[in-house]
Amino acid sequence: MVQYSVHLDRAFAALSDPTRRGILSRLGRGDASISDLASSFDMTLTGMKKHVQVLEEAGLVTTEKVGRVRTCRLGPERLAPEVAWMRSYAEMVEARFNWLERFLERTKGETS
Amino acid sequence: MVQYSVHLDRAFAALSDPTRRGILSRLGRGDASISDLASSFDMTLTGMKKHVQVLEEAGLVTTEKVGRVRTCRLGPERLAPEVAWMRSYAEMVEARFNWLERFLERTKGETS
Repeated sequence: MVQYSVHLDRAFAALSDPTRRGILSRLGRGDASISDLASSFDMTLTGMKKHVQVLEEAGLVTTEKVGRVRTCRLGPERLAPEVAWMRSYAEMVEARFNWLERFLERTKGETS
Repeated sequence: MVQYSVHLDRAFAALSDPTRRGILSRLGRGDASISDLASSFDMTLTGMKKHVQVLEEAGLVTTEKVGRVRTCRLGPERLAPEVAWMRSYAEMVEARFNWLERFLERTKGETS
């Protein structure tokens, strides 16, 4: 459970930045080197490496270095636990609002 | 688009903390005061106020002060844009992996 929580923490934190979401979209269209990504996002190599590292730690991206080139691709983690968390949250919210509606419906006669 | 991006940034950042996810689950079962929440999560009032403020800025929680008590409830934002972003990401990832599979299938004869 703690492991699961740390996993969610990292993934949501990784997704909280527009450049990192952009990198994921870019990698969805094909693998890319760090320098490809840096130039696509008009960013320094150092800045891009930091973003890629955050994505890598969250399991969203994997990288492989061959010679001097580090290639990035989408990682093994495909946001399944995050989607599951959001789905259960949405169900809970819906249940809560349904309960409120039923409560208001039930008590309508009492106030009018 | 920029507005949408800032919105996603805030919501994902708000969700990147286990206490804040816990607060949302707690509020899904019913409204609660800041001090109820602080005691449920074994936290100081000041610490809890900070978490609630992050959730409020992301639109996930609303608060109302009546007298000395500030009551928290689930906010107007029900994670719809985040779910939409994740859904389109999942579709993109699936398309990418399907393409890879088809590519591998197509080129199998060429290498064997």
